[in-house]
Amino acid sequence: MKKEMTRSIRINGERLWRRIMAMAEVGATEKGGSNRQALTDEDREGRDMFVSWCNDAGLDVRIDQMGNIFAWRHGSDPMQTPVLASSHLDTQPTGGRFDGVYGVLAALEVMETLNEHGIETIAPLVLASWTNEEGARFVPAMMGSGVFAGVFDLKEAWASEDRSGTSLYDELERIGYLGDRPAEAFPIRAALEVHIEQGPILESKARQVGIVTGVQGLRWYDITLSGDECHAGPTPMKQRRDPFMVLGPVLEFCYAMAEEFSPSARVTFGDIKVVPGARNTVPGEVTLSVDLRHHDAGILDLMDARLREYVEKLCGAAGINGMVEEVWHMPVTRFDQGCIEAVRSATKQLGYPCIDMVSGAGHDSLYIAKVAPASMIFVPCENGLSHNEAENVSLADLEAGCNVLLHAMLHIAGS
Amino acid sequence: MKKEMTRSIRINGERLWRRIMAMAEVGATEKGGSNRQALTDEDREGRDMFVSWCNDAGLDVRIDQMGNIFAWRHGSDPMQTPVLASSHLDTQPTGGRFDGVYGVLAALEVMETLNEHGIETIAPLVLASWTNEEGARFVPAMMGSGVFAGVFDLKEAWASEDRSGTSLYDELERIGYLGDRPAEAFPIRAALEVHIEQGPILESKARQVGIVTGVQGLRWYDITLSGDECHAGPTPMKQRRDPFMVLGPVLEFCYAMAEEFSPSARVTFGDIKVVPGARNTVPGEVTLSVDLRHHDAGILDLMDARLREYVEKLCGAAGINGMVEEVWHMPVTRFDQGCIEAVRSATKQLGYPCIDMVSGAGHDSLYIAKVAPASMIFVPCENGLSHNEAENVSLADLEAGCNVLLHAMLHIAGS
Repeated sequence: MKKEMTRSIRINGERLWRRIMAMAEVGATEKGGSNRQALTDEDREGRDMFVSWCNDAGLDVRIDQMGNIFAWRHGSDPMQTPVLASSHLDTQPTGGRFDGVYGVLAALEVMETLNEHGIETIAPLVLASWTNEEGARFVPAMMGSGVFAGVFDLKEAWASEDRSGTSLYDELERIGYLGDRPAEAFPIRAALEVHIEQGPILESKARQVGIVTGVQGLRWYDITLSGDECHAGPTPMKQRRDPFMVLGPVLEFCYAMAEEFSPSARVTFGDIKVVPGARNTVPGEVTLSVDLRHHDAGILDLMDARLREYVEKLCGAAGINGMVEEVWHMPVTRFDQGCIEAVRSATKQLGYPCIDMVSGAGHDSLYIAKVAPASMIFVPCENGLSHNEAENVSLADLEAGCNVLLHAMLHIAGS
Repeated sequence: MKKEMTRSIRINGERLWRRIMAMAEVGATEKGGSNRQALTDEDREGRDMFVSWCNDAGLDVRIDQMGNIFAWRHGSDPMQTPVLASSHLDTQPTGGRFDGVYGVLAALEVMETLNEHGIETIAPLVLASWTNEEGARFVPAMMGSGVFAGVFDLKEAWASEDRSGTSLYDELERIGYLGDRPAEAFPIRAALEVHIEQGPILESKARQVGIVTGVQGLRWYDITLSGDECHAGPTPMKQRRDPFMVLGPVLEFCYAMAEEFSPSARVTFGDIKVVPGARNTVPGEVTLSVDLRHHDAGILDLMDARLREYVEKLCGAAGINGMVEEVWHMPVTRFDQGCIEAVRSATKQLGYPCIDMVSGAGHDSLYIAKVAPASMIFVPCENGLSHNEAENVSLADLEAGCNVLLHAMLHIAGS
């Protein structure tokens, strides 16, 4: 087919919207969101519906041992490695309608649009829906893509249990999605994922497309501050070893670091545990969870070193035991330059206002990037809200992201 | 009896110690403390043992409708109102051996010492053990003395339930301590209570006796800071309404106030609740419990006003909703000058190193002071530790406090 003809094709936004809404009905919540946690009956129902759509579109559906769903559209040259578009269908317990679902159904919409226009790509296209991206029911998150990429061991993933003690393996089997295809990477030419931003940047800058160049590095810490438990009344202030006396300075120091390395640096205190947690007792121990992020690995290392040094010095001077323990980290990911340029060029060709950005959240693409050239496309979501039943996206923005995905895939796969 | 002879009598420290240890065996914990919470089987066993000791000492035992135990030693003049010595036998779940128990058994020891020396006081002496001082099982604390003093309603106290839904009334009945005497104050000439300090001041100043002139006023607050829940990664720092951003300044402000009004001011943060409390979510709400104390009612009022003003101003500027809610308060109590002087004069006569002090904790005497002239005597406890299984007191200090109680009671009751 002529280049000029393929350039003018556009996806069917109404069909895409209709399917997203149909999927949202599976596990619909009262407040307009979805509860379709991994490997529940709702997840099965959603998967079944999705697989039937794939079959209707003439795609060749395969399931692997992690329940990851692959739907192939063959190309003209069987020697070529495929171009992948993927995301996930599972949700948070009070999740939104678009997180993950949009990326999977946009990839399907790309396939159908190509079908309708009779376009055969040179390289095959494959669409994937990864098992348990959210990690809400089974920990860790991004599990299906993680096993696929060799980050997690299949047996360990199978053995992971939900709060009721049910294993992931048993649930895969129960809902009929324990496939026989090995849960391991195959050669992939390029991997793209379109996703809602889950933050307010695109909306506030009035851009329709985010060209995602990488994912922020992340470090999770528990900072444990220990002193002496004592009575709130009788113990003079000077004789206390009160962990709260150093908590304020620790918070302030971290926020000041975020300011220094703004706008990319993020610092979040998600929780505090206080022991014993009694109103009239000076606590013996306070544990603060800290989440530090930056897209520059060097700066993240510097923030790490500064935080440790500060807590040690501060606590030493205050007579408090301060321990900074890293509980998890996610290295900085830079996406593939070829994929980024394919997305950029499709966006420019389509004329959507865009901006380069770095993802603040983890996505399946983070792991896929370990085994294939990869990048992502973001579209705005209303008020930056996500992991929330009120999550919302405009039809125009859904169309824009999906058209960018279509043309970037076409460009890479050739036609 | 001649004044010179009564002046020379001293209590029997060994007997007092032996009884404290016998009581500690009832509900003894592995780490050397006691778990004898109000109206449990252990409390019944402790009460039964105590009542048998009172009977052996020839005291006239009466139980009121709150299970408060009174043991009378009649005086020579039936027209005189009695002198009371009291405390409590219930403990915290991981309580110490001395908190409360010492005061009750010291009062019994005073009675026995007078018996042995054949001393008849002019006014009667009465010893009381109050039900549920600790408030560990049934809320609120200081309940028996509170009902006695008219601070709490009897029916409401009866209706209070433990975590399993069992009512105080049913438990009083079950353990056989639902008495028929009205749970209300009778005329009292003076009320004394000897107690461990539960703080480190006497030990650090090397004094054996604390002459307690009053109890600090106390205000309990919940400060609720509300912003917007959002993702830790994608949301830029400038677009967050993060309650933790104002938490540090609130902590610092309170500690600075404590410093300004030192050494009497106390500020304690006993607990924080974070909603939703997820590591990678900026919390929507943080609730901090604050305990402010000072022995000067005017300064406590000033601290209250300043705290409210500061939180309002700070949160207003930061775009956070800040709410300061008082959940309980205890007014400043000044003990009776006559009682204080009786204690001071007994202490000087006995030659113990002493200091005037203000109690930082609440005690039954706080409520008794509402219906009778009252004051307290403190003795040091090891490292200031209390509400702790490791709570410890030296025999010499137990003797000192008990001898002061003996001579102060003798002075007030006359002989």
